[in-house]
Amino acid sequence: MSVTTPQGFRAAGVEAGLKTSGGKDVALVVNDGPTFDSATVFTANRCKANPVLWSQEVVKDGTVRAVVLNSGGANCYTGPEGFQTTHAVAEQVAGHLGFGAVDVVVCSTGLIGLTNDRDQLLAGVDAAYAGLSPQGGQDAAEAIMTTDSVSKQVVVEGAGWSIGGMAKGAGMLAPQLATMLVVLTTDAVVPAADLDTALRAATRVSFDRLDSDGCMSTNDTVTVMASGASGITPSLDDFTQALTQACTDLAMQLLKDAEGADHEIAITTLNAATEDEAVEVSRSVARSNLFKAAIFGNDPNWGRVLASIGTTSAQFDPADLDVAMNGVWVCKQSTPHADPATVDLQGREVSVTIDLKTGSERATVWTNDLTHAYVHENSAYSS
Amino acid sequence: MSVTTPQGFRAAGVEAGLKTSGGKDVALVVNDGPTFDSATVFTANRCKANPVLWSQEVVKDGTVRAVVLNSGGANCYTGPEGFQTTHAVAEQVAGHLGFGAVDVVVCSTGLIGLTNDRDQLLAGVDAAYAGLSPQGGQDAAEAIMTTDSVSKQVVVEGAGWSIGGMAKGAGMLAPQLATMLVVLTTDAVVPAADLDTALRAATRVSFDRLDSDGCMSTNDTVTVMASGASGITPSLDDFTQALTQACTDLAMQLLKDAEGADHEIAITTLNAATEDEAVEVSRSVARSNLFKAAIFGNDPNWGRVLASIGTTSAQFDPADLDVAMNGVWVCKQSTPHADPATVDLQGREVSVTIDLKTGSERATVWTNDLTHAYVHENSAYSS
Repeated sequence: MSVTTPQGFRAAGVEAGLKTSGGKDVALVVNDGPTFDSATVFTANRCKANPVLWSQEVVKDGTVRAVVLNSGGANCYTGPEGFQTTHAVAEQVAGHLGFGAVDVVVCSTGLIGLTNDRDQLLAGVDAAYAGLSPQGGQDAAEAIMTTDSVSKQVVVEGAGWSIGGMAKGAGMLAPQLATMLVVLTTDAVVPAADLDTALRAATRVSFDRLDSDGCMSTNDTVTVMASGASGITPSLDDFTQALTQACTDLAMQLLKDAEGADHEIAITTLNAATEDEAVEVSRSVARSNLFKAAIFGNDPNWGRVLASIGTTSAQFDPADLDVAMNGVWVCKQSTPHADPATVDLQGREVSVTIDLKTGSERATVWTNDLTHAYVHENSAYSS
Repeated sequence: MSVTTPQGFRAAGVEAGLKTSGGKDVALVVNDGPTFDSATVFTANRCKANPVLWSQEVVKDGTVRAVVLNSGGANCYTGPEGFQTTHAVAEQVAGHLGFGAVDVVVCSTGLIGLTNDRDQLLAGVDAAYAGLSPQGGQDAAEAIMTTDSVSKQVVVEGAGWSIGGMAKGAGMLAPQLATMLVVLTTDAVVPAADLDTALRAATRVSFDRLDSDGCMSTNDTVTVMASGASGITPSLDDFTQALTQACTDLAMQLLKDAEGADHEIAITTLNAATEDEAVEVSRSVARSNLFKAAIFGNDPNWGRVLASIGTTSAQFDPADLDVAMNGVWVCKQSTPHADPATVDLQGREVSVTIDLKTGSERATVWTNDLTHAYVHENSAYSS
């Protein structure tokens, strides 16, 4: 049930003293081959952390042999010294394992503008290397947690091959990657170009449609490594489908652990002219603080849904919109329909369905409600 | 100190029983001439309330003789019956005053999807007509309050002429007009075309740069009426300057009364390539829930500022950004500079200054912090 479930991978998670709260904070995932194909997607934020600036160069040749991750500091906006720390970490990993630093992806998470103690971090790398094990996935998943309350892992089984994954992230979850670090492993034989195609397809409909609080991180990284250790080459379709399932599962775990949330909200737009317009409409609702606060209050306030739809450029007739909440069509033809009092919002899972009556495309965007606990977690502590 | 300060205007505010909380809820402002020039801007939301749909037609000829406003229901997404209610209200006002309904702007505010009782509303119009007075501005300003804790009014004096204004709005304040109703009056002689030019210039740098919670209303309306009663024709520059002052003053009053806010935050972007890019950068920070929650917690978290800037398409070098909070440059050249602990965020007024070092344009966007009280007000009650 982890990144070490597929054959050909070892991992470790150790405590290096980076997190002021204590606990494991350095993780290492190593691909022992025989293949070293990989693909990676990064945050679309133009203000990128040092590990992202480093790793963008590393992944260009399609070969990644290890991913090293730390919590306890994002190493973002820490200047040249911060970049040198990232470089030193990659060199340390590569030195231990006998390959080049250019095959090591580095990920960091924590407060922006905070420089990690380089010696502490390098000592953590040494300890992680010493602890590498084919059973180390769970430890690695725990070492990347920040405000996460639980570790997030997944395994998807193919025919003789599998995909494993771990993720961290519990806020700042927004499009073009939520604030999160994700490592995926597979023992299938998949060339780097196909991995890239599959990863982009999978993230487009999973992590990219998670919009917890509209905030985009500076550090997001999703890496998939293929060891080929199973000797099996699945079809690209089969592999993409399994990878999408793994990414969606992890995305739902991130959604459920979002900081301070009381509800998981799936906003589905039906019958849009294009899939992009369906995403735009769903996302506009996911971004409405007024709508999100209403859901926290168990208030089926469909007016706030319509007000959000009206801010988009999607094609629709403003006088002919239908909206359902938890299956109850509270608005039809842009006028009140079923009694909102019949909508039960007590459970954690909430669905909003919007019918644009324009085309035949659809999309779902997931978000959380806006709660006192969200405000508390993001005002009482720096992160 | 109200819409009845300029000569040639009468107003009233009465209790018609529309607001479940009680209190005045119907307002009427009448221009007694001799001129009836006007200009109006509306919400950019494509989902527009019935009063907006009506008033958009009314204002086309540049003549408005009265504005009638009600709180206690937005009359939005209430179907043809709701539109007929708006029409009936305009007819009732026009019948009393002896001109056509096509010269009557109608504004409503309150819950979306709620149909006002037409008889109650028309009785309120009768009472407002009966109560019209050259001293009625204060009552009118009180009658349009919803979650507002105070009425918002302004007077700007010209040379022998003046501008009066009133506004309501305490949340859902976002670009292309905050959620708000604003009536401005002047006894200057200003042709409708010039009023339109002046109003667009004034709202562009005032209400349009207020972004309390990123949510755009369905009902926003800003109307200015010129009675010409002073007999004085100011230069368009002088008038535009005074109108901008009036709008900015009202915008700051709206900002200070935003639902549940603890801080008023001015986000200024300097040295942008264009004014639009300066607005885009400032607005991206104003829209960040993480940043807004940090300010609530008195945490000068400049990392969240940079992370927001990185989501924009403005021109800048991600490695050369400076950020100041309350005058302290906590970040220079995208690295930590002054100690954030020296930034005092205890006061209500917070300034964030961003130096893009790209061009010479600047803009300020105003927002509030994200607080427990905001979540409470927008979750515990429908609005």
